[in-house]
Amino acid sequence: MSIHTVKRAQSHLVWDNSIPPVLRVNSGETITFDCLDASNGQVTSDTQAQHLATLNFASLDQVNGPIYVSTAEPGDTLQIDVLDVQTADWGWTGIFPGFGILADEFAVPELKIWSLHTSEGEEESYGYAWFDKSKGIKIPLKPLAGEMGVAPGEKGAFSTIPPYKTGGNIDTKHLSKGSTLYLPIEAEGALFSVGDGHAAQGDGEVCGTAIETPMKITVRLTVLKDKQYVKTPHFQTPPTTKSESTDGYYCTTGVDPDIREATRSAVRNMIAFLSAEYSLKPVESYMLCSVAGDLRMHEVVDMPNYVIGMMIPRSIFGHSS
Amino acid sequence: MSIHTVKRAQSHLVWDNSIPPVLRVNSGETITFDCLDASNGQVTSDTQAQHLATLNFASLDQVNGPIYVSTAEPGDTLQIDVLDVQTADWGWTGIFPGFGILADEFAVPELKIWSLHTSEGEEESYGYAWFDKSKGIKIPLKPLAGEMGVAPGEKGAFSTIPPYKTGGNIDTKHLSKGSTLYLPIEAEGALFSVGDGHAAQGDGEVCGTAIETPMKITVRLTVLKDKQYVKTPHFQTPPTTKSESTDGYYCTTGVDPDIREATRSAVRNMIAFLSAEYSLKPVESYMLCSVAGDLRMHEVVDMPNYVIGMMIPRSIFGHSS
Repeated sequence: MSIHTVKRAQSHLVWDNSIPPVLRVNSGETITFDCLDASNGQVTSDTQAQHLATLNFASLDQVNGPIYVSTAEPGDTLQIDVLDVQTADWGWTGIFPGFGILADEFAVPELKIWSLHTSEGEEESYGYAWFDKSKGIKIPLKPLAGEMGVAPGEKGAFSTIPPYKTGGNIDTKHLSKGSTLYLPIEAEGALFSVGDGHAAQGDGEVCGTAIETPMKITVRLTVLKDKQYVKTPHFQTPPTTKSESTDGYYCTTGVDPDIREATRSAVRNMIAFLSAEYSLKPVESYMLCSVAGDLRMHEVVDMPNYVIGMMIPRSIFGHSS
Repeated sequence: MSIHTVKRAQSHLVWDNSIPPVLRVNSGETITFDCLDASNGQVTSDTQAQHLATLNFASLDQVNGPIYVSTAEPGDTLQIDVLDVQTADWGWTGIFPGFGILADEFAVPELKIWSLHTSEGEEESYGYAWFDKSKGIKIPLKPLAGEMGVAPGEKGAFSTIPPYKTGGNIDTKHLSKGSTLYLPIEAEGALFSVGDGHAAQGDGEVCGTAIETPMKITVRLTVLKDKQYVKTPHFQTPPTTKSESTDGYYCTTGVDPDIREATRSAVRNMIAFLSAEYSLKPVESYMLCSVAGDLRMHEVVDMPNYVIGMMIPRSIFGHSS
């Protein structure tokens, strides 16, 4: 399908409009990228939690590219159609000290290795990753790229860890196959890059990592000249063919005058609920929130208190019809 | 169905554990409440925007009750099963100066009166409120109570405007028919009250009001002795029988180191999109975000920048299958 390919080694570690493009394409063409996971291949299915402390953090969160798209000028919009995302058959979720919305409460490194059932086989496993088979808890796979971005207009090198108005590490669960992302172009040629494969994540990615995995992703890049209102990432999700949560949600809330504290409280309360009701360790519950729970802002106007919700689909607990 | 009823006049304007109960019920009994809208009957279907400035704010956001539930003790949990919610055949959405997530950008009072198609009739209107019939924009009705709460343990009178850990004005779109809310009990008898009918709202209620409407609501109140982890409102949504958004979503984001500014940016960007693509006035787009758009926290861990999304279901634009 694609007429262009980008290899694993064709990656970079900062957003910088002076990085030479690895490829030049016409508007409307498709490209397939072969991407290592966000650890740049340092985590494997044999890695242990205690190894996380020895990772070389300077080589994390690489992105593949950049792609120069002809006719793209500052002020234009880049339309990215996500045509396909394939993961490896394994993934990982990690707790890194200092990282995550409850970093101060989860200071010990932890690592979970997942089997991703991406090829047809046992019916109850296909398309899922078992979180805990003995408890019947499994996560539906919905692969996406955590990083999709274009080069900043400003000269200089910018870390790939934070997201920007030009995209990058936006870690948005909705950007799976069939979605379309729109980014404001700031540099000539747009200079698009992609990386950070996630097999599944919730809104928020609260523990700091999703189900991280190597990925092959195919996108179509199109330059738009008439969408000047796109000043930050916009996106569109595909029509759904069936309900994604036939069992509804269980939700915990945080109520606080500080939005971040309300968010932390909502997550902390869900950890307490999951740990009590499903006999999980707190760090397991925290990871479950990160890969399957959605943070929503229920109420942001009845001052002084915000209400933030952490919503877990009940179908992950095996009640799905 | 209900063995108890509470009338419109049986309301109060503060949360205060010294307010005498209007009713005493046993755990597990059901009650139907007849509630005025959040303006306490001051806004009618004839009200004009310029009248909003003359409202008596001291009588807003009344709640009906309180209900004393036998056996309820501090430390217990009150389970509230929402059995039914019926609205009037009209509602309103208002912009009040100083209120709403973009209060500084929308300083002029505005009022929209809606017809709620709650009885069977014209097939394309039943269960919806037309936002703009000429443009084909209609909002699905999903009635709920914006206020459900129990009395605080602390002595004194607390405004019904903000939400608390004991509930109150939590304005949560998910608490419609079939949902179950859990609240931590702080006062003997729980002292439950309810009000603030909404015919529809999005996560966030960003302009400060939903589709406000008089409401009849029936709930079952049950005291639970074994849910000590409920320290803030928890809730459960019912199984869904079909997808709520077969056309997917259009989403705008805000990317900022301050969560509130990221939230404001996401809303501002959606207003710009809706105004450009559907020829709406900015204040119309703002109201549309409040009644139909969902604020989600896509990413809260890639510091220093948060990514907040405002997601509008595309089905409101008449593309629904």
